[in-house]
Amino acid sequence: MDVVALTEKLTSIPSTREGEAEVPVARWLTEYLREQLPWLQIHHDAFRDGRFNVFVSDGAPCRLLLTGHMDTLPVGGGWSRAPTGERVGERFYGRGALDMKGGIATMVAALEQVGVRATRGISLLLYCDEEYEFEGMRHFLTSYGHRPPPAFVVCPEPTQLLIRNGCRGVAELHVTVEGRSGHAARPESGRSAFDAVVRGVTELDALLADRAHDDLGAPTRNVASIRCGRRMGTAPDGSPILGAQANIIPDHADAVVEVRTVPGIDAADCLTAFSRGVHASGATVTSAVTTFDLRPFFIHRESLAPLARAQAAVLGAPAYADLGTTGYSDIQLLASQWEVPCAMLGPSGANAHAADEYVEVESLRALQAMFEHLIRVSAG
Amino acid sequence: MDVVALTEKLTSIPSTREGEAEVPVARWLTEYLREQLPWLQIHHDAFRDGRFNVFVSDGAPCRLLLTGHMDTLPVGGGWSRAPTGERVGERFYGRGALDMKGGIATMVAALEQVGVRATRGISLLLYCDEEYEFEGMRHFLTSYGHRPPPAFVVCPEPTQLLIRNGCRGVAELHVTVEGRSGHAARPESGRSAFDAVVRGVTELDALLADRAHDDLGAPTRNVASIRCGRRMGTAPDGSPILGAQANIIPDHADAVVEVRTVPGIDAADCLTAFSRGVHASGATVTSAVTTFDLRPFFIHRESLAPLARAQAAVLGAPAYADLGTTGYSDIQLLASQWEVPCAMLGPSGANAHAADEYVEVESLRALQAMFEHLIRVSAG
Repeated sequence: MDVVALTEKLTSIPSTREGEAEVPVARWLTEYLREQLPWLQIHHDAFRDGRFNVFVSDGAPCRLLLTGHMDTLPVGGGWSRAPTGERVGERFYGRGALDMKGGIATMVAALEQVGVRATRGISLLLYCDEEYEFEGMRHFLTSYGHRPPPAFVVCPEPTQLLIRNGCRGVAELHVTVEGRSGHAARPESGRSAFDAVVRGVTELDALLADRAHDDLGAPTRNVASIRCGRRMGTAPDGSPILGAQANIIPDHADAVVEVRTVPGIDAADCLTAFSRGVHASGATVTSAVTTFDLRPFFIHRESLAPLARAQAAVLGAPAYADLGTTGYSDIQLLASQWEVPCAMLGPSGANAHAADEYVEVESLRALQAMFEHLIRVSAG
Repeated sequence: MDVVALTEKLTSIPSTREGEAEVPVARWLTEYLREQLPWLQIHHDAFRDGRFNVFVSDGAPCRLLLTGHMDTLPVGGGWSRAPTGERVGERFYGRGALDMKGGIATMVAALEQVGVRATRGISLLLYCDEEYEFEGMRHFLTSYGHRPPPAFVVCPEPTQLLIRNGCRGVAELHVTVEGRSGHAARPESGRSAFDAVVRGVTELDALLADRAHDDLGAPTRNVASIRCGRRMGTAPDGSPILGAQANIIPDHADAVVEVRTVPGIDAADCLTAFSRGVHASGATVTSAVTTFDLRPFFIHRESLAPLARAQAAVLGAPAYADLGTTGYSDIQLLASQWEVPCAMLGPSGANAHAADEYVEVESLRALQAMFEHLIRVSAG
């Protein structure tokens, strides 16, 4: 099928957590691939709640793994175009059109175009749950087990047709800080949980200062949430009931802190720095749950020569993304497990994760051409 | 009645907001004063919900106003002694024993002891709601109107028998800060409401730095409560529903900030400094409610000579409290309205506002003696 028609079809099938997540699109893709690429084996790898990764391979050792996620974020509000897909000039709007059903369409269309002659050793992994807990990729890595790793991995995260050869890591900490209540007129009568959190964050910022990586850029920090006050009791859901009486020093804080890390800094380092500040403030970190500790990854450009050549064949010259401002991609999980060249190269567009997400139609055609080139030079 | 027996009786009558607040103790005191001091007029000044201040006077111009509040904080948990009163050696335990039923007992017992001969121009104000909104004192100031002010005011807040001739003011701000949501990987894509609050607090701290008053000490700051996250909607009670997704920059914060002020700094100054920091952070203070803006007060020691002499007659020499660590007292409201000498002088003890509050029995007797001395030299 034409790559744009395929993008339109995939976008028309919802993949949000409010519904059956990516299950319907996984079923449709399975049928489609079975018809169009009958020489490849299709394996369903179920992990829970009827959800499954789709792994497509000819059974030969994998020389190139093309991979993309099938789930999308919820539609959300504020759309001026149809979230299920609307073509306006050179843009195709829809939830997932850019991130990343358009990308999936380019991989599938490229495989179709290249055909049975040149797909030996080429695998396709369509996986689940990238937008939330990375469960699909984690499951794949477990079930793929100790088989020889693919020689090369490419994922069409939206990159404006630029090669993205790394990303910072993610350390996500859920911390509880306990101070001591006291009277506001006498700060020394208590230990403010608010001041302790601020001091912890200050120490964390000091850890991150001057640690910019040449390619990945500077680490950044986000305090996504804080609830702080005087603990009055416990709600039925187990969360603390916090008072807000102005003359009482708050003794409790719950905070969610996220750091985009660079090589040499991990979640434990972040927690150590934060805790040092809290303790210097006379308070205590009574609970710290590390929800994510995903390492950064960075692949030198020299290792990505085949991809750069495929890109240059279409664009005229290779072009790379600025890695210092990009979000996390779970391709890092592959890079971390296998230490093989991994990179992202995806279509152009805007508003991924927001209203009026769209993909530029021309970029889908360009990306398909790049993938065809890459498949041909990679196949055995 | 003996001052200790009177303290025990007053402590045995609850005065907490969970019940009828100070109404029962106000009724009992009214009956008692009517019997014991029949030459004085007793006026009930009701302000709401059946609550009333008790004002006792002989009708002559007021030369000395003795005043104390009848309400107490809730009992709370953690007591090892009976909150309704328990004598253990030289300590008398109970909610309000120290703050300030013991003090009321000393004033009443002193008036009884001095008797009709020496109470001309001496008034007694027993008022409501000191522990919360200062409504009793506010109501008194309104209803007392434009009558000539008392020449001298003394209140037995617990002071360890030291003269307390001032207190810092209170500025209480309830602020809402709105930033802009964005992706944590790109801090510049949003404006963190958390970072904005921290910067606002930093500016506020800078305002307060190096502003210590010679007698009142340094101003202090308490962030009593903060709720911060990404605004997802509005709860049925009108409060924002805040998300805590780690990779989203928070766009909303509600905070309660309290400052103990010194002369030259008021709530508007505090809010200006806080807002400057918030705005420098690219966020906005969308709501700021000043719940309290109570000025500090300070009375020079020379103006308090009669009180110092009364104290010295018992202790041997005058002794003054450190004003830099004391809580707010609504005697400030009197000092602010009348510009007459006002001071606190109260009993010794500990744990006011906490479990196992107690008053030292001997300090009640000493305080009664001081008040008798003061009444005798003040009466017309």
